[in-house]
Amino acid sequence: MSTLISVGKLITGNARDEIIDDAAILIEGNRIQQILSQATIGRIDSTEHIHAHELVAIPGFVQTHVHLCQTLFRGLAEDFQLLDWLKKRIFPFEAAHDEKSMFCSALLGIAELIRSGTTTILDMGSINHEEEVIRAVGETGMRAFVGKAMMDLNDAFPKLKEPTKVSLRTTLNLAEQWHNSYDGRVQYAVAPRFVLSCTDALLQEAHEMTMSFEGMLFHTHASENKTEVKAVRDRCKMENIEFLDHLHVLSEKACLAHCIHLNDREMDILKTTDSNIAHCPSSNLKLGSGIANISKLVNHGINVTFGADGAPCNNNLNMFQEMRLASLLQKAFQGPTALPAKQVFKMATIGGARALGLEDVIGSIEVGKKADIVLLDLARIWNPVIANEDIYSTIVYSAEPANVDSVMIDGRWVYRKGISVDIDEAKILREAKNELMDLLERVEYQ
Amino acid sequence: MSTLISVGKLITGNARDEIIDDAAILIEGNRIQQILSQATIGRIDSTEHIHAHELVAIPGFVQTHVHLCQTLFRGLAEDFQLLDWLKKRIFPFEAAHDEKSMFCSALLGIAELIRSGTTTILDMGSINHEEEVIRAVGETGMRAFVGKAMMDLNDAFPKLKEPTKVSLRTTLNLAEQWHNSYDGRVQYAVAPRFVLSCTDALLQEAHEMTMSFEGMLFHTHASENKTEVKAVRDRCKMENIEFLDHLHVLSEKACLAHCIHLNDREMDILKTTDSNIAHCPSSNLKLGSGIANISKLVNHGINVTFGADGAPCNNNLNMFQEMRLASLLQKAFQGPTALPAKQVFKMATIGGARALGLEDVIGSIEVGKKADIVLLDLARIWNPVIANEDIYSTIVYSAEPANVDSVMIDGRWVYRKGISVDIDEAKILREAKNELMDLLERVEYQ
Repeated sequence: MSTLISVGKLITGNARDEIIDDAAILIEGNRIQQILSQATIGRIDSTEHIHAHELVAIPGFVQTHVHLCQTLFRGLAEDFQLLDWLKKRIFPFEAAHDEKSMFCSALLGIAELIRSGTTTILDMGSINHEEEVIRAVGETGMRAFVGKAMMDLNDAFPKLKEPTKVSLRTTLNLAEQWHNSYDGRVQYAVAPRFVLSCTDALLQEAHEMTMSFEGMLFHTHASENKTEVKAVRDRCKMENIEFLDHLHVLSEKACLAHCIHLNDREMDILKTTDSNIAHCPSSNLKLGSGIANISKLVNHGINVTFGADGAPCNNNLNMFQEMRLASLLQKAFQGPTALPAKQVFKMATIGGARALGLEDVIGSIEVGKKADIVLLDLARIWNPVIANEDIYSTIVYSAEPANVDSVMIDGRWVYRKGISVDIDEAKILREAKNELMDLLERVEYQ
Repeated sequence: MSTLISVGKLITGNARDEIIDDAAILIEGNRIQQILSQATIGRIDSTEHIHAHELVAIPGFVQTHVHLCQTLFRGLAEDFQLLDWLKKRIFPFEAAHDEKSMFCSALLGIAELIRSGTTTILDMGSINHEEEVIRAVGETGMRAFVGKAMMDLNDAFPKLKEPTKVSLRTTLNLAEQWHNSYDGRVQYAVAPRFVLSCTDALLQEAHEMTMSFEGMLFHTHASENKTEVKAVRDRCKMENIEFLDHLHVLSEKACLAHCIHLNDREMDILKTTDSNIAHCPSSNLKLGSGIANISKLVNHGINVTFGADGAPCNNNLNMFQEMRLASLLQKAFQGPTALPAKQVFKMATIGGARALGLEDVIGSIEVGKKADIVLLDLARIWNPVIANEDIYSTIVYSAEPANVDSVMIDGRWVYRKGISVDIDEAKILREAKNELMDLLERVEYQ
């Protein structure tokens, strides 16, 4: 099975930032086999030839921090700051999930991610029903690192926690069963939720487990909110990132969501340990958490990537929105030359891939890489693109999910001409309503 | 000619914030004649009956600060701060406009505004060719206050200025000819660009002219950028808003774009003069201008409204983006309860209408008002809307232009089911390319 895609413009996202007009991409199985000029296409035999001369091909976006388990709760947790948002809404809601509501929530989120051009995610689940998230990812064709949330402490909502040993054993079972499943499309990320929901032992053993599997990641939240940071300081007698370093859990396998409130020493630690940051600008604004100084972090040599976080704190899962906002926020504080469009685009593609240890596998359109490709229809946006470089401004500052025409993940079309290939969106929306109503009946608030 | 529109949900935006399920709006000519429940529709005779039971009707958005003349320049002025952005790009580009490029630029902008749900704008033109902006507004069915930019000083780019008398005479001629033209859909706003481009005499006489016409507005920029604010202080020996007050040009007829850098005394002046603010959050971030404390301004009792500004500093003309960003930015600084979705929605509709002196004419869907109505298809957004109030969260935090199904202005459909009624978008995009190329040949940089 081979597919040839002819496009008007190919933004490779490779190290030389090559942009090729009138290019064609030949895909064999799940791999990019060749990148050709229009002139040489005639000689290629392929099973399927997509003529998309009016479209622009880009590498699929990589989101390094999302919560599929929360998609069902969009709009139900407005106007809270982080710790209240967790205690009064998100924790009780997550605790009320059953298998069906969890599968539905994941499916809703995946449909939205795909139709807005995201092809790979690093997801954090809830304590229970992680198998349903994995099944949704597996069946829809999404590429994902998945991981159940680990919590052996929870002062805010004691119902949503588990004994340390249970958390570790459940995680180990999931990791053994699902890491590198679905042709390698699904991988595992060990996910202690954040310092305040984990004992020292849980964090350390979670990290040891991470290191015992090749390609596994360590996914957590850190330094999102000032009250959280103070609570960590009170318990640990040091700053959040210092504490994680003290436990030896930071490395190039770590992806830390948020990292807003950091001192210079903590930035140095993130740099020397090669840790990755998942910047979530919409979520950080909406929960009143603050604005991470990602220009400074990037200039420090730290790999900063993007995630939409969960639907209730964003309220979208849309990488276009996160790219634009990330750039604009830095300009407001660092001046208008901060974080230009091309740099943001790279953070959203190859930067994300690097954070996941997949720099050689995805994140750009290059021969030998897996075929995660998004076709954009930018025709309706007036942006004359006089120099090829201008195309990044169109994508980062002006584009929106409606500009996504088609999405291929792992060599397979998951979205074609504005329609989900495998997900019946109308059906899932109907089911979601029922699942949510049932879930709200089950919720026990404090 | 009458039209009956049956919708699933009607967000009236009236003083009681009524939301009516299964409602119908009867429009006679350009006025809303009746609002009915589903049960009583059978008795109504109408020429046209639109069955849109799956859609949500909202009042059209009102943008209180845009520059249609700049739409052609999107993507051509990235990564500058305000004064450089004007001097090196926008002023030379504006000076190079001819009649055809100006008409084209306005048409491009209007098409984008309409398809993203904006039905009324307060526009500031360039020095020349304002008739072309007016013709574009008139022919497309847009509702607008228009006004040529007045500039009798321009140290940054001396080519783009005019003698004081010429500026006043040209403005007077335009105002006499076009204020209340096109069935009252087009009105005039006298538009001295900003203090730094105007002599005291120009500002004062412009204001006197404003007051001599009923319903005319006074439209300018103020306190956008710290360098600008300092230059005003150096010249005028007082702060920007104090200086405008000193010239007696502030009143309920004044709409001031930006107002980022204000002291408390200036806020008091804006309050006591009943001046209106056009907050432009995307533009303010992108040009590195700063973030206006609009929560404080609103709490002070000042009417704060929204505008996308021009395409080159945004890079969209999309009210959904401005509403979401305005809310999220305030939450980051004032906490997550600041500027909730419903409040933002009202600022974008009736608040804008109030700034334009049209509070009794547009800005809500009420009997007797002109029919400026947007139909939204929100089905694809998962937001369960358990309480009717939740609909504001869907619109402000999640919706995007792709959710706009149809737009009516002044009782006439200008956009139906995703297609512009009178504007051939493909044609205008082709023409824009040619006009821009010609214009770039004409540009004389400093």
